[in-house]
Amino acid sequence: MTPRTHQADPTSSTRRTLLRGTAAAATAALATAALAPTAHAADTTPYPSKNPSRVRTGTPPRGPRIGILLYDGYSLLDPTGPAEILSRVPGASVTMVAERRGPVRTDTGDVAVMAERSLDEAGRLDVLLVPGAGNRGVVAAMENRTLLQWIRHTDRRTRFTTSVCTGSLVLAATGLLDGRRATTYWASAPYLEKTFGVTYVPERYVESGKFITAAGVSAGLDMALYLAARLTDEDTARAIQLAVEYDPRPPFDAGNAQEASEDLKARALKIVEDSQA
Amino acid sequence: MTPRTHQADPTSSTRRTLLRGTAAAATAALATAALAPTAHAADTTPYPSKNPSRVRTGTPPRGPRIGILLYDGYSLLDPTGPAEILSRVPGASVTMVAERRGPVRTDTGDVAVMAERSLDEAGRLDVLLVPGAGNRGVVAAMENRTLLQWIRHTDRRTRFTTSVCTGSLVLAATGLLDGRRATTYWASAPYLEKTFGVTYVPERYVESGKFITAAGVSAGLDMALYLAARLTDEDTARAIQLAVEYDPRPPFDAGNAQEASEDLKARALKIVEDSQA
Repeated sequence: MTPRTHQADPTSSTRRTLLRGTAAAATAALATAALAPTAHAADTTPYPSKNPSRVRTGTPPRGPRIGILLYDGYSLLDPTGPAEILSRVPGASVTMVAERRGPVRTDTGDVAVMAERSLDEAGRLDVLLVPGAGNRGVVAAMENRTLLQWIRHTDRRTRFTTSVCTGSLVLAATGLLDGRRATTYWASAPYLEKTFGVTYVPERYVESGKFITAAGVSAGLDMALYLAARLTDEDTARAIQLAVEYDPRPPFDAGNAQEASEDLKARALKIVEDSQA
Repeated sequence: MTPRTHQADPTSSTRRTLLRGTAAAATAALATAALAPTAHAADTTPYPSKNPSRVRTGTPPRGPRIGILLYDGYSLLDPTGPAEILSRVPGASVTMVAERRGPVRTDTGDVAVMAERSLDEAGRLDVLLVPGAGNRGVVAAMENRTLLQWIRHTDRRTRFTTSVCTGSLVLAATGLLDGRRATTYWASAPYLEKTFGVTYVPERYVESGKFITAAGVSAGLDMALYLAARLTDEDTARAIQLAVEYDPRPPFDAGNAQEASEDLKARALKIVEDSQA
């Protein structure tokens, strides 16, 4: 890749310092990266792919292979929050997987994320993540024998099998959570306990053996940061946290169902329902 | 849509209570929604579209039209975090927009989100959101006159023009932030101030006139929740917060650059650099 010229552009003289940390070494490294990207090195791709467009070039030696399952009607943040964090794990590859390659649409119908690989193409994964979905999407996934069979098959060789939100219901439907402690979306806790005999723990994420389940939607971020530490070390996870400036300060304090009024819970469920496609 | 039959499935008898809140009214509404989706009503689509596949059916009367700009090399959570929250605003439509329709790839090269509309097709927006990107992506966006011109043009009729992370550099490159207070990714603050004469404020989000800028990556969630309140009311925003269970509890406390050591900042910037495609 040849550096572009910027003669007429007012930003050209300062572009080397666009991401200027106070640490000189890092700044220099970034400036160099901007002007002279690492040479392409096809033989160091972390994840051999049939789709050359998604091959990351010039990455360090192979890190964890992370696969995120997409299925019709998932909630957008469930796969994308963890993907943002886990894609910063040194050498990691993050691949969106679905029954078929191509765009997979969210519960609200607004957004579609590309599945890069079909179930057959996913291969061995070090980490599997199953996102949650709205009612319709979760019910369909729990009844999709192909999907459940693939999860069971893939789980045999994972280091961690994880879920976000109602993704734990899909995991539980495979039988993999039998007799375990787990969490899920707050409103789905009774269903998880009664249908699958799983002990619900109202934490942001719950680790039970190699299974890590996260609570609703945004809890995937907390779980992914914890998972990043398990895949690397705590110092690396802290650096990833700063890399994505994850110092949350929501303007309200209404996200905890344990403390929410019945009225607020009813309003929240109505909002979920009304926003479905 | 005809309800499917589930005779042989062990989950069938309990599926009505999959998302069972303690509020009976909401539960009943959800069960009804699962078994008898709202009838399609093509004349109530919130956002006339040339792409029928993304038209949400049966939604309430038109709410805010929210457009999120995608460009090559954006950071995944920057558009998707706010999209998750804003898609829960009653009646809202959230549309991913890019120079061309189709998949747009992230900075790490791992993931692609579909742009549903090209710039020409985006039309009038009530809210525009510009995500951030890695060094290469931001530099390219700041030098892309078509993109900058479209942002300026679209901004003329927005109610709010917003950004996440280094998206504020792209906004600033249009001149729209001249003389304003704003925030950005922590490592880009000196660049924002020196290049564009913008006053950097190290908050999760900064409102200045109709411009709301968010700090790095994950700060888009906090900003989106605030924006949801501005588009509706505080009670609705609180219900949205509970709907996405946004009660953050990161396992570490390393996301604030103001409190980070030089060593941690250097490590974070190295992680950002190394994870780029």
